[in-house]
Amino acid sequence: MTENSTTKATMEKIVSLCKRRGFIFQSSEIYGGLGSCWDYGPLGVELKRNVKEAWWRFMIRERDDVVGLDTAILMHPQVWVASGHVQGFTDPLVECKACHLRWRADALQGIKCPSCGGELTEPRMFNLMFKTFMGPVEDAASVVYLRPETAQGIFVNFENVMMSQRRKLPFGIAQIGKTFRNEITPGNFIFRTREFEQMEMEFFVKPGTDEQWFTYWVEQRLSWYKGLGIRKENLRLRPHGRDELAHYARCCSDVEYLFPMGWSELEGIANRGDFDLTQHSKVSGKRLEYFDDETNEHYIPYVIEPSAGVDRSLLAFLIDAYDEEPDKEGTRVILHLHRDLAPVKVAILPLSRKEEVSGVARKIHSSLRPCFMTQYDDTQSIGRRYRRQDEIGTPFCVTVDFQSLEDHAVTIRERDSMKQIRVPIADLKQVVLAKLAGEPFEGQTATAGEGASKA
Amino acid sequence: MTENSTTKATMEKIVSLCKRRGFIFQSSEIYGGLGSCWDYGPLGVELKRNVKEAWWRFMIRERDDVVGLDTAILMHPQVWVASGHVQGFTDPLVECKACHLRWRADALQGIKCPSCGGELTEPRMFNLMFKTFMGPVEDAASVVYLRPETAQGIFVNFENVMMSQRRKLPFGIAQIGKTFRNEITPGNFIFRTREFEQMEMEFFVKPGTDEQWFTYWVEQRLSWYKGLGIRKENLRLRPHGRDELAHYARCCSDVEYLFPMGWSELEGIANRGDFDLTQHSKVSGKRLEYFDDETNEHYIPYVIEPSAGVDRSLLAFLIDAYDEEPDKEGTRVILHLHRDLAPVKVAILPLSRKEEVSGVARKIHSSLRPCFMTQYDDTQSIGRRYRRQDEIGTPFCVTVDFQSLEDHAVTIRERDSMKQIRVPIADLKQVVLAKLAGEPFEGQTATAGEGASKA
Repeated sequence: MTENSTTKATMEKIVSLCKRRGFIFQSSEIYGGLGSCWDYGPLGVELKRNVKEAWWRFMIRERDDVVGLDTAILMHPQVWVASGHVQGFTDPLVECKACHLRWRADALQGIKCPSCGGELTEPRMFNLMFKTFMGPVEDAASVVYLRPETAQGIFVNFENVMMSQRRKLPFGIAQIGKTFRNEITPGNFIFRTREFEQMEMEFFVKPGTDEQWFTYWVEQRLSWYKGLGIRKENLRLRPHGRDELAHYARCCSDVEYLFPMGWSELEGIANRGDFDLTQHSKVSGKRLEYFDDETNEHYIPYVIEPSAGVDRSLLAFLIDAYDEEPDKEGTRVILHLHRDLAPVKVAILPLSRKEEVSGVARKIHSSLRPCFMTQYDDTQSIGRRYRRQDEIGTPFCVTVDFQSLEDHAVTIRERDSMKQIRVPIADLKQVVLAKLAGEPFEGQTATAGEGASKA
Repeated sequence: MTENSTTKATMEKIVSLCKRRGFIFQSSEIYGGLGSCWDYGPLGVELKRNVKEAWWRFMIRERDDVVGLDTAILMHPQVWVASGHVQGFTDPLVECKACHLRWRADALQGIKCPSCGGELTEPRMFNLMFKTFMGPVEDAASVVYLRPETAQGIFVNFENVMMSQRRKLPFGIAQIGKTFRNEITPGNFIFRTREFEQMEMEFFVKPGTDEQWFTYWVEQRLSWYKGLGIRKENLRLRPHGRDELAHYARCCSDVEYLFPMGWSELEGIANRGDFDLTQHSKVSGKRLEYFDDETNEHYIPYVIEPSAGVDRSLLAFLIDAYDEEPDKEGTRVILHLHRDLAPVKVAILPLSRKEEVSGVARKIHSSLRPCFMTQYDDTQSIGRRYRRQDEIGTPFCVTVDFQSLEDHAVTIRERDSMKQIRVPIADLKQVVLAKLAGEPFEGQTATAGEGASKA
């Protein structure tokens, strides 16, 4: 693995940190794992919830023109006929005539089986959709697919959403959910997996206005990643060439991130034209049109689609946040996660386990936890505890000491600058909420560095 | 359908409201639907997010002893051998020898096919797990299952979570996620479906303390439903008889709700003993034990499991909240949803579309929406708009009128009492936040009822 240009993160360090601190574990690890499946641990699940929440807020809650949706993973099989997935969502595979292993034809260098050296068949198309059987009989009539994208759930609900929400163009429908692709070559940790989560939005517009909306959404989506702390030098936009456009797309641009394995796709933003609604109209026999009461026209809207991966966004946020700083005790590992994404917002660290101190600390803990995710830690030295919180990206630590019993105040220490401020306990909640909302942290460098409040 | 004892909700009314207002649509409806699959619309997805958030806050964030987890749907197939699902997660089916339809043997009255009258086979066991194939070759070696419960994802991560989080007994691991069961007879709207979402927690305790923890969790879970507004007369606890206990359970109680179709399970709370960790130890060959450093003992913890359904909880909340009141214009339909569950917290309703009024209203809307879900509605009469918000359970409506331009104040109207208070715009956000946090609403009955602020 090569180093990211501006961070010290390698994939090995990230994988190791994720396992050690409980962000991400190999799925079914006690059984030797299951090909490229991963489980989110106690910190990972909070980080993932925060990534999804940030997207939901940005794409839906703070806008007038987008609503949410949550459709089933199992859909009518005709949906995938209409969308083109049954016919076209395939990779070319060759099979070894001797050992019957299969290989991706486009990834093979030679004409022999890489495993046993046997002769290979001609390439055949292999569908990437997982299939299963619904109902008690396993036959062709009962085949259903695990959705390979959430987008089609939106298209088939276009009319229901528009009518029930009394919507006019332009408007969008957004959803977050699991999708499944039987990838032949998954890899790079949680970057490419067979089970993953998407955040997709279909924005329906009047044909002719689609190019300006495409430009608008490209800018919006770039600003989302930057607003959550991704450095702009690690982010780029790559327009698709005419020859690599998907069959449904009029144009498409990828938002790419500089992962340790190189520039790779975070999100695709496509102008899908009227492809999907037209196809579903044809195959279902239902007219999926919009009536424009200003111009008295019926037409099929065009669609702009920003489609992002939850897991690979999360990986990019982790990599971009990772840093190592030399310090007296060796190395300080820090996750400079944006405050909205950090799994734990505030750690409460009493400097003594004596009842007077821990009683105050517990009370503070109780008053803060209804507002945001907290941790209480009273084990080992305060220096060790700060390091533990830095490593998981906790923006603020609150230390409670013997002086707190007299001045009824506590120290807040900020993760990145390690600066500290003393705050009356009565004001603590409001101060922390303001800092978490983005108010600058104007603190003092602790007089003896991190040692200032050592236990 | 019979009426619920204390509400006017029938299943038909709930299904109809859900479709009309965009809570829940039939999945793949334009293709004629797909057996018992449902999609959550713009309001349904918000309600569902709120149900899950309320559970997460109650079970994890506000406790010291429970952490979260989010494991993959696809797990190693040996997991389901160890758990007993491959062998025992079955229903007895009979097949018609003439038309080959299959039927649940225990649900059949006669010995003839209910469809064609043909002769039936002897009952055979049918496994309820959905299976699929991972990787390019469809053979027995590549079979994986869609998980029929989230619980096993927790058990196989027991050691990873305990070590990475430095946990001591007792502690719990909780997760929310999709599960799949190939039910032969799904039905009753979203009550029993083949794809659904679970909220499960495994609480690991020292053997011998399990009975008191079982009692504790039964009380906690009942209090969760009541705290979110379910009437106590519609809720009951039903301990399982010895003959109906699952193979893994030492004892089990169901929390039941009085649905329109009768008392039915919302949640099961089971004492699973050491069944699961013992089984996974045996089948994986990894010791899954706890070392108690106070007593110097190694032992396998016992487990208390509260296992709830997201979809059926949501259905119970909807049914319990549903009410109809006669009024001048016919019937006022209200969802008395708890403020934490309501999909929209505040609607902003300008009494005029004139720029002076709508400008103020838009500004108010912008200041409130970063805090919670809002709606802006300026179409039709204020009476109609109130009714629309009542029907989707919005706790508070804020009306902006011409007087607002002079006194810089607006009217807040509460859903259940229809009482109103006048609040300075400068204080609005704090007042609404306080009311949403549970502060009593001490308002005036509008002098001419709902007509007091008619447009």
